[in-house]
Order: sequence, then C-alpha cells, then structure tokens
Amino acid sequence: MKSIYVVAATGALLGSMMCAAGPAALAPNGIERPEDYRDWRLIASSHREDNNTLRVILGNDTAVEAARAGHTNPWPDGTIFAKLVWKDRVHPDWKKATVPGEFVHAEFMFKDANKYTQTGGWGFARWVGMDQEPYGENASFSQECFGCHTPVKDNDYVFTRPAVLP
Amino acid sequence: MKSIYVVAATGALLGSMMCAAGPAALAPNGIERPEDYRDWRLIASSHREDNNTLRVILGNDTAVEAARAGHTNPWPDGTIFAKLVWKDRVHPDWKKATVPGEFVHAEFMFKDANKYTQTGGWGFARWVGMDQEPYGENASFSQECFGCHTPVKDNDYVFTRPAVLP
Repeated sequence: MKSIYVVAATGALLGSMMCAAGPAALAPNGIERPEDYRDWRLIASSHREDNNTLRVILGNDTAVEAARAGHTNPWPDGTIFAKLVWKDRVHPDWKKATVPGEFVHAEFMFKDANKYTQTGGWGFARWVGMDQEPYGENASFSQECFGCHTPVKDNDYVFTRPAVLP
Repeated sequence: MKSIYVVAATGALLGSMMCAAGPAALAPNGIERPEDYRDWRLIASSHREDNNTLRVILGNDTAVEAARAGHTNPWPDGTIFAKLVWKDRVHPDWKKATVPGEFVHAEFMFKDANKYTQTGGWGFARWVGMDQEPYGENASFSQECFGCHTPVKDNDYVFTRPAVLP
C-alpha cells in the first residue's frame, strides 16, 4: 500500500503533463485556441519577478522558422506564439531554483497584418487556468492586451526575443 | 545607414535562433549529441538564482509521451532530456523580467537502465557554449554529474518535474 500511496501523492502534488478533455471555448473576439500548442517548439522563456511567474514561449512552425532565420521585425503573417504561464514554486530538492507550479494561463498572439489592423497586426487571446476559460467580458479585451504591448511597438509589439541556441 | 546599424546591433545584442554548422564532437564517454534537440518538445523550465541562469528542459518523443502519461518514476528507457541553459538577462523593456541572455551550455540525460548501470541508469553529457565543446577531460566526468543528481535518487535521479499543462 505504501508504494501505491507514494505514487498517488506524487501525481497529485507534482502533477504531470495532461491533455485537455476537449477544445477550449472561443475567445470573446472569436479567436480559437490552437489545439496542438503543447507540441509547438521553443522560442524563449522568462521569469517575471514582479508577479512571481515562470513563462515559456512556444511558437508554431511559421514562428520557429522566422526566429531561426532572424525574420522577427516584423514577424511574418501566420506566426502564432503561445506564452504558457505558471506560478513560481521552489524546487523541493534545490531551494535556489524556481520551477513551474500551478498553471495560470496560456496567452496567444496571432500575426495577420491585414486582419488585426486595430491591434498592431496581432490578434490576442488568453485562456485561464486548467479549465481554459476564455479571458475577457467582450471583444474589447484585446485593447487591454494591445495597450500593454505598446512599449514594444518598435519590436513589432512583441516582448519575446528568441533565445539563442547553437 | 542608421537602420542598417540598428538591425546589425539588434542581431548582435539579442541574437536569434541559429542552427549549428555541423554535428558536435562526441562527449568523452562516447555519447553523441542528438542533432534534432532544438525541435524537441517542452517538459519544464527553471530559474536558478544561485548561479543566475534560466533553463528550459526539452524531451524527445519518448520523454514527452512518458511525461503526459505520468510514467516518470522511473522514466522509460529511450527517454532523453535536453536542459538548455542561458545566463540571466534583464528584459530591456520590462525590468522585472529575467530572460535568456548568453547561451551557456546544453546538458543531456539518456535513460538506459541496462547500459548506464554505474550512473543510475542515465548517461550524462554536456556541450558547452555556442561552439558546443564537449565537457569533461575523460569519461569519469559522468561521476561528477551523477554525484550532483544523487539527492534526487528517489525521483529516478531527475531534478525536473514536468510542468502541468491543460
């Protein structure tokens, strides 16, 4: 019984990558969450010490090809980023390491210069928590996202810089 | 000229994902670096505040399938992790965010319970810097890696816990 308990407790405490039961609801601006985002490739990571969250930024194939080619200002139409956000957690066996704890939300940016003219050529959407509830009361939530990205207008409204890899 | 200078400076300072010129040399214990590691999928990330580095842990298909199924103690034979390490950098436009700066090294763990009996069932290797020089004077470097991983013996010698994703 002891080994069964340990396995169950480890699963409950630490979690494991799980697949969602189904597709998420549409964002209030009509944007659909890409179902395969967990399988996208790495663009960068970050640690926000103002709100104690760890983030990993993944990209679809268009984003990854553009990043590797250095075509990031502007990013090409068809680029999609998924920024995955977790609360900080102290590693149980390495106290000076911060690791992903509870999942917070997934944020997406969709580049289409002709479609999203009101928000810098980017469609914004966010799905919250493990239940992936769409963020925003109505379509105007995009303006909130866009406002926060305005300081990086000269970087095509993108905070993320691709991490250097050999 | 100004715009050319800005583009060149941005490239030099911020970098972009680049592909290596060719395969890396073998590690001193004979382990070969997987050439496709940049395309592997996400397992987790971390921020080590004792040595000021950001890390992203990617896994090969065996690792990702095991993580999603919760089969992580032990991890199955064939699992490979790539831990990619960058120096901390302050985000130029968000001072409370730490982002990947200079690339430090790529560390790998290869699970083969029958092959790597002297090091907990894991083959260890590390390639350093953008030139991807193999780490270690001779094959005994693996014992250094293994020694550091001994505190997590009860987690199959793995520090990384897969990040929870919806």
